[in-house]
Amino acid sequence: MNPDIVKERQNATFDVEKLTNILDGGPEKTKRRREIEALVQNDPDFEEDDPNFLSRSERYDQAVRKSAQMILKIREYGIADPEEIFCYKNCVHHNRPEPLDLHLGMFLPTLLNQATPEQMDRFFMPAWNLHIIGTYAQTEIGHGTHLRGLETTATYDPATQEFVLNSPTVSSIKWWPGGLGKTSNHAIVLAQLYTRGNCHGLHAFIVPIRDMSTHEPLPGIVVGDIGPKFGFNEVDNGFLKLENVRIPRENMLMKYAKVEPDGTYMKPPSAKLTYGTMVFIRSMIVGASACALSKACTIAIRYSAVRHQSEIRPGEPEPQILDYQTQQHKLFPLLAMAYAFSFVGQYMKATYHRITEDINQGDFSEMPELHALSAGLKAFTTWATSSAIEVCRMSCGGHGYSRCSALPDIYVEFTPMCTYEGENTVMMLQTARYLVKSYRQVKDGQQLSGIVSYLNEAEHRRVQAQPVTARPTVVDINDLASLVEVYKLRAAILVELATKSIQEELQHRKSQEDAWNNSAIDLVRASDAHCHYVVVKLFTDKLGEIGDTAVHSVLSSLALLYALYGITQNSGDFLQAGLLSVPQVLQISGHIKELLSQLRPNAVALVDAFDIHDKRLNSVLGRYDGNVYEQMFEWARRSPLNSTEVHESFHKYLKPLRSKL
Amino acid sequence: MNPDIVKERQNATFDVEKLTNILDGGPEKTKRRREIEALVQNDPDFEEDDPNFLSRSERYDQAVRKSAQMILKIREYGIADPEEIFCYKNCVHHNRPEPLDLHLGMFLPTLLNQATPEQMDRFFMPAWNLHIIGTYAQTEIGHGTHLRGLETTATYDPATQEFVLNSPTVSSIKWWPGGLGKTSNHAIVLAQLYTRGNCHGLHAFIVPIRDMSTHEPLPGIVVGDIGPKFGFNEVDNGFLKLENVRIPRENMLMKYAKVEPDGTYMKPPSAKLTYGTMVFIRSMIVGASACALSKACTIAIRYSAVRHQSEIRPGEPEPQILDYQTQQHKLFPLLAMAYAFSFVGQYMKATYHRITEDINQGDFSEMPELHALSAGLKAFTTWATSSAIEVCRMSCGGHGYSRCSALPDIYVEFTPMCTYEGENTVMMLQTARYLVKSYRQVKDGQQLSGIVSYLNEAEHRRVQAQPVTARPTVVDINDLASLVEVYKLRAAILVELATKSIQEELQHRKSQEDAWNNSAIDLVRASDAHCHYVVVKLFTDKLGEIGDTAVHSVLSSLALLYALYGITQNSGDFLQAGLLSVPQVLQISGHIKELLSQLRPNAVALVDAFDIHDKRLNSVLGRYDGNVYEQMFEWARRSPLNSTEVHESFHKYLKPLRSKL
Repeated sequence: MNPDIVKERQNATFDVEKLTNILDGGPEKTKRRREIEALVQNDPDFEEDDPNFLSRSERYDQAVRKSAQMILKIREYGIADPEEIFCYKNCVHHNRPEPLDLHLGMFLPTLLNQATPEQMDRFFMPAWNLHIIGTYAQTEIGHGTHLRGLETTATYDPATQEFVLNSPTVSSIKWWPGGLGKTSNHAIVLAQLYTRGNCHGLHAFIVPIRDMSTHEPLPGIVVGDIGPKFGFNEVDNGFLKLENVRIPRENMLMKYAKVEPDGTYMKPPSAKLTYGTMVFIRSMIVGASACALSKACTIAIRYSAVRHQSEIRPGEPEPQILDYQTQQHKLFPLLAMAYAFSFVGQYMKATYHRITEDINQGDFSEMPELHALSAGLKAFTTWATSSAIEVCRMSCGGHGYSRCSALPDIYVEFTPMCTYEGENTVMMLQTARYLVKSYRQVKDGQQLSGIVSYLNEAEHRRVQAQPVTARPTVVDINDLASLVEVYKLRAAILVELATKSIQEELQHRKSQEDAWNNSAIDLVRASDAHCHYVVVKLFTDKLGEIGDTAVHSVLSSLALLYALYGITQNSGDFLQAGLLSVPQVLQISGHIKELLSQLRPNAVALVDAFDIHDKRLNSVLGRYDGNVYEQMFEWARRSPLNSTEVHESFHKYLKPLRSKL
Repeated sequence: MNPDIVKERQNATFDVEKLTNILDGGPEKTKRRREIEALVQNDPDFEEDDPNFLSRSERYDQAVRKSAQMILKIREYGIADPEEIFCYKNCVHHNRPEPLDLHLGMFLPTLLNQATPEQMDRFFMPAWNLHIIGTYAQTEIGHGTHLRGLETTATYDPATQEFVLNSPTVSSIKWWPGGLGKTSNHAIVLAQLYTRGNCHGLHAFIVPIRDMSTHEPLPGIVVGDIGPKFGFNEVDNGFLKLENVRIPRENMLMKYAKVEPDGTYMKPPSAKLTYGTMVFIRSMIVGASACALSKACTIAIRYSAVRHQSEIRPGEPEPQILDYQTQQHKLFPLLAMAYAFSFVGQYMKATYHRITEDINQGDFSEMPELHALSAGLKAFTTWATSSAIEVCRMSCGGHGYSRCSALPDIYVEFTPMCTYEGENTVMMLQTARYLVKSYRQVKDGQQLSGIVSYLNEAEHRRVQAQPVTARPTVVDINDLASLVEVYKLRAAILVELATKSIQEELQHRKSQEDAWNNSAIDLVRASDAHCHYVVVKLFTDKLGEIGDTAVHSVLSSLALLYALYGITQNSGDFLQAGLLSVPQVLQISGHIKELLSQLRPNAVALVDAFDIHDKRLNSVLGRYDGNVYEQMFEWARRSPLNSTEVHESFHKYLKPLRSKL
């Protein structure tokens, strides 16, 4: 064990295990998580070659091998709780996406939700037993978020009682679905349904794409891998071009909408039935942000504790990097953010389950709020996390660029979350739509409930976008409740500003749509402020649940740092609105410096509390024992370029060059 | 040609070729650049396999092949001007770093600067003719920016008149030098010189590391590749462990410092002789930032012109992404930044050459300023560019993640610039040191000249960090000269704030060093504001040189956007200092929206003016003809995972799984 890191742990002021339990949701959850992790980590079937040293094809091959093992073991051990399955899977694949993700996460659930009993009989057990391996093919090469733009067609032919599927243009080729390229033999294809000459919009069809026995593509199917990407090397994201592919009428998922044998179309009873999955996935992404950021912080902070560099006082030995104020200022606000997002993730999960219960009992009232919240927080947390991972990486100096640090991989596996499951800017605008609607309801005299209820107060207080110099400055910058209040007022003011912008555009005779587009910058800003408020509030609320004094104290410092740092990063908003005075903003800068010093002795303990096992972290820089350089040297020596002392290029090019010059 | 992009070009209000000439530095430079590019692009010897489809070893192999060809051709064609060589090389290697970079860029120049005539006789021609291939081994696994911390030793043994080189610890292993792993047979090793029992600090030694004939590592040498990284796949960054390696006394580079045969050490006449190279490289990096950002903007803006998505007005066809205000707000400020950095790059190059002339004539007076400026601007431009490339990438939706977009590679090849040649935070603090020193000189009654002369005025005007409500707001937000002025005042105020912070710390009985460290956040902020001012100023100055009215007009809009956007991103600073009023900040937001609309018709023409040939851009999304999706499909089909219809993993794992479930 590196002596620096031993000393760091001795300096901690709180019991790490207690904080771990809070993050897990209780001591019994910590215990169970560790049991599951141990199951995987001690299982020789999951040993792997370092993916950094493999080709793309080898990485895919290894991932398929582990996924197949994983399916067997999960059933063997009888792990059935979805959260436990998720934990097991993440352990097996080190949080990397894997080839069966869409089979397990989209194909099977879609069958469960949208297949008729007859279709369940035909498809579910074969799919459960991996005879059928499926994916979910929605996105096309030229079409993403906007579903109405999708071009794939499914035209009903009553003569044969079949649907004929086609990709009529290049831009309509299905593109990106995970597992589509090489792994799947079936796909649920989203296509515009045509019957009796009318288009009835998007519907889902089960399309066999490869021969069940030989795995060769079926006639009319052009399928393959979309080529190398930024990350996602284990997954065969694929393309699918359909050329007059005929499937039986019974392959349309008909639990809701139906096409009769004669081609008569029957509408679904409600259009919003698949709403839930989307909200669920976006809520999960908030937790995934916390997870990725926790890893990055663990690596950067542990390495900063053992890395000595440069000098503060001449003549003295090189200090730990973590003693530099600039390094603390880079990392501690991100550490605070990792905790903030962890608690927001817990809240989103709990809220999702609560509202799902309500929905099952017929109460849909909170759904729009949850939808808006999950969209905004998905964007807010993924953007922040994506940038933060890179700050962590760059805070490690040159070694952050080495794949053995794990940081490049954490980044490339995480950053796609900014784009998939709803592109972030589109998400922010969806939340903005809800905020503007809510604001207008208040203006119309309605009383709002739930998380946007602050818009009632805002109207009540006649908050103005201009600073009111006379407004008494009641903010206490050491008091979280007071800071929650200013974040709330900032959000209210920016929602009001955005709404005003729309109104002004309308006064210039713009259409509703153009007015919206011409206010989009303000709308995104309002959503951002709303989400920021929610995060500060939820972090503060969480403190109320913490009984242990020492843990409460350190988490309070983190929450305060999170809130104050956010103010300095957006100080213009707070000054502009007259919510804070100039001396207060200066005080806040000073207070942040104090918090950095205060958190310094607990920094390593705070990342230890994330309890990310070395095998899961998989980072030479982030090792628990701090023995970084020895292991880095060992790792480098195993690199494929070192398998021979002399690379063949010497004999091929460099030696012959001598005689030519 | 895609009709959308044709229309975009028809809408441009200025002559693209004229702007290209301005960027190149004159029509004749444009002509010559294109000649050189054509030389490479039409040369079948430089055809390459798509690196995205190759293994690391194959990529290295291909790069060595092309580098060898490049050396031959440059000599064959008699290309001798360093800038032309640089252009040729970038064309051959698509701006990617290559295995001979350090041989050409560090080994040969170091010989030229630091070798004695005798050493030149022994080493230069063999190195020139690639018998000797060398690298420059400074960084160690545990030591980077802080040179005094390096641990490698070179101990003189008068008995044999040899130096004995050693890597005494794991942390002293040389790490990162390009070309060290596999390519080089010599290294210039930086080591602590010991003779007669005294350490004389870092000196440079020429160390043979591989056999000239077999290329096998020599006795006592442990050398190899440091393993896969984030980018830099073509380069064998290497490690080097020295175990009692003996080299003749004559292998120490002795143009300045010397060790006599008896071990007597003779000091160099001046310690600052190698200062210039560092400044030169950092100045070049500013230009490299502009280049990388221009590429990223070209891809994102062209693709946004041909990509249709979602809807603004219901029922109408999907609009071009570029018509969304949010997309314009993401990309146009970055386009403005690309132009700003291009002009700053031109300025730095010119200034470097001017000051080098002065130095050759014995005038060192401007060196400290250039050193401070190149350090700060290196950090300022690389941080901004690194983030901006990712914004460009994410603005392309899912396809930005595909390697065929080229954006992932632009990012991973660029982002290391934030760390090498001086870690950015360290660079910012170096600039801050100069600023604080200058500020104190003013306080002491000195009159400053050069770029920091604004600190004279600041003192003169008694600028305060607190807002002076009574101060007349004279800023005209439509006038660049006026905006340069507020950026200047902001910088002056933040330099003052940082200096005050140091003073306050000193009053709390902190040592100078601790006071500095405890003010580091403020110091970095001051440097950042200083650099921002310089960039706005240089962009504005450049406009004065532009004769063509149409080009002047569009560049003025860009400069204004750059300046105003920077204010909104840092509005807290301007409000806090009372430099702008709240209504002005609101006006600026409105004005930015107008500028976005104004620039919209010229967006494609403005990236066309960067004149980056399709072969150099190498991006499916950024193609000049806009035919994106057809080419993406073609590219994907060539992906190695599609070389067989059925991947072997099906037979190995998925089919056998069926019988086990």
